[in-house]
Amino acid sequence: MARRLVILTEGFSNPRTAKTAANVIRYRPEEVLAVLDSTQVGRHSGELLQAGRVPFVARLADVPDADTLLIGIAPPGGKIPAPWRAVILEAIDRGMDVVSGLHEFLGDDAEFAEAARRRGVRLQDVRRNHERDVATCLDIDPSTLRVLTVGHDCSVGKMVAAVELTRACTARGLDAKFLATGQTGIMIDGDGVPVDCVVSDFVNGAVERLVKRHQHHDILLIEGQGSLAHPAYSAVTLGLLHGCAPQAMIFCYEAGRTRTTSVEHRPIPPIRDIKRCFETMAEIRHPSRTIGFAINGRLLDDAAARDERRRIEDEFGLPACDLFRDGPETLLAAIVAARADLDRLHPRPKRV
Amino acid sequence: MARRLVILTEGFSNPRTAKTAANVIRYRPEEVLAVLDSTQVGRHSGELLQAGRVPFVARLADVPDADTLLIGIAPPGGKIPAPWRAVILEAIDRGMDVVSGLHEFLGDDAEFAEAARRRGVRLQDVRRNHERDVATCLDIDPSTLRVLTVGHDCSVGKMVAAVELTRACTARGLDAKFLATGQTGIMIDGDGVPVDCVVSDFVNGAVERLVKRHQHHDILLIEGQGSLAHPAYSAVTLGLLHGCAPQAMIFCYEAGRTRTTSVEHRPIPPIRDIKRCFETMAEIRHPSRTIGFAINGRLLDDAAARDERRRIEDEFGLPACDLFRDGPETLLAAIVAARADLDRLHPRPKRV
Repeated sequence: MARRLVILTEGFSNPRTAKTAANVIRYRPEEVLAVLDSTQVGRHSGELLQAGRVPFVARLADVPDADTLLIGIAPPGGKIPAPWRAVILEAIDRGMDVVSGLHEFLGDDAEFAEAARRRGVRLQDVRRNHERDVATCLDIDPSTLRVLTVGHDCSVGKMVAAVELTRACTARGLDAKFLATGQTGIMIDGDGVPVDCVVSDFVNGAVERLVKRHQHHDILLIEGQGSLAHPAYSAVTLGLLHGCAPQAMIFCYEAGRTRTTSVEHRPIPPIRDIKRCFETMAEIRHPSRTIGFAINGRLLDDAAARDERRRIEDEFGLPACDLFRDGPETLLAAIVAARADLDRLHPRPKRV
Repeated sequence: MARRLVILTEGFSNPRTAKTAANVIRYRPEEVLAVLDSTQVGRHSGELLQAGRVPFVARLADVPDADTLLIGIAPPGGKIPAPWRAVILEAIDRGMDVVSGLHEFLGDDAEFAEAARRRGVRLQDVRRNHERDVATCLDIDPSTLRVLTVGHDCSVGKMVAAVELTRACTARGLDAKFLATGQTGIMIDGDGVPVDCVVSDFVNGAVERLVKRHQHHDILLIEGQGSLAHPAYSAVTLGLLHGCAPQAMIFCYEAGRTRTTSVEHRPIPPIRDIKRCFETMAEIRHPSRTIGFAINGRLLDDAAARDERRRIEDEFGLPACDLFRDGPETLLAAIVAARADLDRLHPRPKRV
């Protein structure tokens, strides 16, 4: 049964800090009744979050039909902002479930846990996991095409690219599946591994198990995380890369972004250096190549976006596009070609 | 006050599976009274573990003076072997503390926890941690020399190399400090971060904090973990590499080892490929270079060890040695040279 969601973004209603909110609205529009940010009443989500047309409200009481409160941000470190505690307690008191993707688990908070128990509602901590298996490199189907979205920084559109390209594949009649590896992807898909919250010894193994559960599909589009060049999150990124052992990677980046998220004093290295890191590190695990670029062009006007696309295609000799501006056709063709290459090496059994 | 240890290795008394035991005996000889393995009574640790001359015993009752039981193995996955439970409970019953480096925490086991509470003894889970800080790349002293031991596989001697070279530096009058990043290192040093048990988002940050706590020393010798080429543990390895941002790396490998630990069907890639991975990935964070090789020559006779050393020095144009056979002088000289290079770039304040 569909949830009836209010998404909490109080004071943080911008597309980067509230990317969980934006993407749940984008990919689960039928479930979202309102966004809670008392500073933005009268506006809608399309204006502030670049997704949908969901109204902002000031109070939970303004959305009496809602049955679930969803925490709509994912701040560095994952802590619950202090002023939100009252809202969460009010939601519980109104009989709403609460869904959170933060590192700090609602269920481990004595006050929240006791309130939820008393009211009989569910606290769903999407990042909670008990992954305890190391990677084995065994029983991996060589005929499944594994495509990983990688990137030059956090929050550049790796999840969006994987979801959009899965939809494009499916629309073309291909048997493709999106694999979520972060809290927002899991909220959208209902399955996945919260890879950045797995104990580091088991990251590669957790991703390998996720892939094996879904390798009956012809094509897996795996959500990337962070960047090998990100000095804070590279452990997550490499565990994911080696755990899913992609034959193909799609490189995602935001044109015009120059500073590393959360360590802003550090410039982002050139794309060619980061691309080489991914290729070198993928290769040591499994033969792999970059098959195209997904450009996040939100900082560009249409003319600049066209120039950027041409510049990247010229520099790397690979297809590039802005999925929202240009549609998925260019990258879809690259995936279809990679699938055909793999068919020659490892033919896929025909389905009847 | 020094502990009086019995080390449990029942049924696993070989230098690889019981590497925790071997290294605690090697670097804390004054603390170890006996090794508990009922299948090896009459032998000593030098024969089976290549460390010290500690006797094997069959029962805790044979070592009445002991006050602490230390779990001496670190199996993949970190689980407590079922037959050992009775020994742990007996130790608790005898009033002994229990020290463990396993992923499965003694303190989370209801039976152990209750027994320890009742008897008033301490269960020390060395891997337990609450690291929750992301790396910031701020306040890192550029004049501290950070040397990381890296390698081609698990269990090749990265901790041993870091400890031996720290001792060699100190003996030369240099201000050097060993930084432990694994359970055995922490048991030996009493400080450190159990990096493979940190939640993946915080690995880089945990290592960065460890470095900052100790950067008043002129030289840090940081214990490496796993390998960038290890398909199961590479997340840990990269988080550690980026967290400590070494200016210099010492590459450790076991001559003659061809199969990857715990994924034996996979050959270990050539050293030059793995070395390139480390250099490429270090460089994206901070300028860094390999300054020498520490060869683990336990599979070689003296003549083969000499040949191996020459072969590696010729191939890479870098100093190489087997620390146990050849002593530390060659690599010590490389560290001293790296310290001098850094002095030219970032002079270290003179101490009085």
